[in-house]
Amino acid sequence: MSTEANNNEKSKKEGHGAVILHNPNVKEADADVLYHFALNTESHNFKDMFGDVKFVCVGGSPRRMGHFANFIMKELHYQLPAGQALTNIAKATDRYALYKIGPVLAASHGMGIPSVSIMLHEIIKLLFHAGAKDVLFFRIGTCGGLGLEAGTVVVTEQPVDGLLRPQMDMQILGKVVTREAKLDPDLCEELVSCASIHDTFNTIKGKTMCTMDFYEGQARLDGAICEYTEEEKAEFLQKCYNNGIRNIEMESLCFAAMCHQANIKGAVACVTLLDRLKEDQIDVSEKTLKSWDERPAHLVARLIKNRLNIA
Amino acid sequence: MSTEANNNEKSKKEGHGAVILHNPNVKEADADVLYHFALNTESHNFKDMFGDVKFVCVGGSPRRMGHFANFIMKELHYQLPAGQALTNIAKATDRYALYKIGPVLAASHGMGIPSVSIMLHEIIKLLFHAGAKDVLFFRIGTCGGLGLEAGTVVVTEQPVDGLLRPQMDMQILGKVVTREAKLDPDLCEELVSCASIHDTFNTIKGKTMCTMDFYEGQARLDGAICEYTEEEKAEFLQKCYNNGIRNIEMESLCFAAMCHQANIKGAVACVTLLDRLKEDQIDVSEKTLKSWDERPAHLVARLIKNRLNIA
Repeated sequence: MSTEANNNEKSKKEGHGAVILHNPNVKEADADVLYHFALNTESHNFKDMFGDVKFVCVGGSPRRMGHFANFIMKELHYQLPAGQALTNIAKATDRYALYKIGPVLAASHGMGIPSVSIMLHEIIKLLFHAGAKDVLFFRIGTCGGLGLEAGTVVVTEQPVDGLLRPQMDMQILGKVVTREAKLDPDLCEELVSCASIHDTFNTIKGKTMCTMDFYEGQARLDGAICEYTEEEKAEFLQKCYNNGIRNIEMESLCFAAMCHQANIKGAVACVTLLDRLKEDQIDVSEKTLKSWDERPAHLVARLIKNRLNIA
Repeated sequence: MSTEANNNEKSKKEGHGAVILHNPNVKEADADVLYHFALNTESHNFKDMFGDVKFVCVGGSPRRMGHFANFIMKELHYQLPAGQALTNIAKATDRYALYKIGPVLAASHGMGIPSVSIMLHEIIKLLFHAGAKDVLFFRIGTCGGLGLEAGTVVVTEQPVDGLLRPQMDMQILGKVVTREAKLDPDLCEELVSCASIHDTFNTIKGKTMCTMDFYEGQARLDGAICEYTEEEKAEFLQKCYNNGIRNIEMESLCFAAMCHQANIKGAVACVTLLDRLKEDQIDVSEKTLKSWDERPAHLVARLIKNRLNIA
């Protein structure tokens, strides 16, 4: 711990902005297998492959992240040589998808905290081995909204767990360990400011409830198991709303906690697919869903272009 | 609750073996969207499609479950007409993959409890709407072993959480709810008895620790974050071993708790990819991995063939 704390302090002092591992066991030069991305420091040159990464964009669905990779390529006017196309760097596995578009890395993370946790452990190690510096992380996802028109984008100010606490409880070596789930407030503001008055949708800030389950954990009445009444559901969701919670999803708490620990600035933008104060079932046409999916991507693309001075 | 309890009692008395929803809000005739499988009772006839399902086999990776579907098709001597091939029923989404081979349904569930929970909610509702009866569930997966030669198959007697408790704690409507995580002991024995003296691997019974994270949750030293020493890790894993835990994975607790609540007999068989008392990194060749992956599938195939009287 003291070595790691020293490295942390040293890195901050030198203004490196380097990705920090809170783990003195992993050395930059060590052989390391990123099993769930089918990458290995002995068979891949991480510095060459990923040393220039400045933005990591993650989302649940591998297909959606493939679309995002092609979208951001156009936005950045990034030209591939004739006869070349983007390809999934992690295609030897199907646990996650991974794309690289210049300084942007795009990865899928599946559904839920355990799944996003594995992805973040391995992507943070990837950036560490690559020597990447000043990297920003964005989660772009879908969610249920609270008291919002479906299609609204919520940028997370503070994630909370299912007991409405701004922390992530973990079970480590047989004990409960609590971690702060903190996002960077400036990056949150910067992302919200990327909304345009010409947008056909609203972008707002709010607290985000992050749950371990889509049905009972999110107070749905339509799961295979439901042991509460419609009234109890409505009361709980209203309580969430009164607490400033504007959307519900399944990854932001872990994303915030791990970015915070790794000294990485992160932000979360999710589009609401329905208003949970009114309904439980997502029944949106494929076409609508596709266009809504792109909304958080548009915000993040604008931020990246601003940072890179691309018109 | 009383309606549901009555239905439960009634179903048991009548010996239906029907899949039971612990949710009085969902009626068999209701329109229902299974969002993460891109299936809908209004656009699909569940009774025709799934009414004859007797075995549900699930595993993390969609690719592996595609291989399993083709494997079980051969094992059951199930012939497709010329010019036809198995296809992913859920291909309109990429959240999960779903295959049907006669009485066998094969689905992927991604990684971790939240991901397997969504899949189980929707598969249990699918079977309920389909009117399927006497259905057995199997999880076939990969895991870390404790004190076992890599490649050994562990059939779970009892899953425990990261605090070594045989229960699943959930956060529902802002409160902690505890569920029993019980598997069917007879089905466990039946699956173990499907091991053959001609197998090139060992099959054993044991407790399974189910964690929320692959790195810190499983006492690995090689994550992006690690706040314990090698000695503390070794002490914890030895304590697990002394408690009868023989393998570590990320879904069995939820699988057991949800099967138990839905009156479904379930069993879990996972192949160990490494011995966690010796190492942290999975560095097995693709070829070896593929052959190990098939070991739990072979056991389950034998059980299904015994049940169906197929030689």
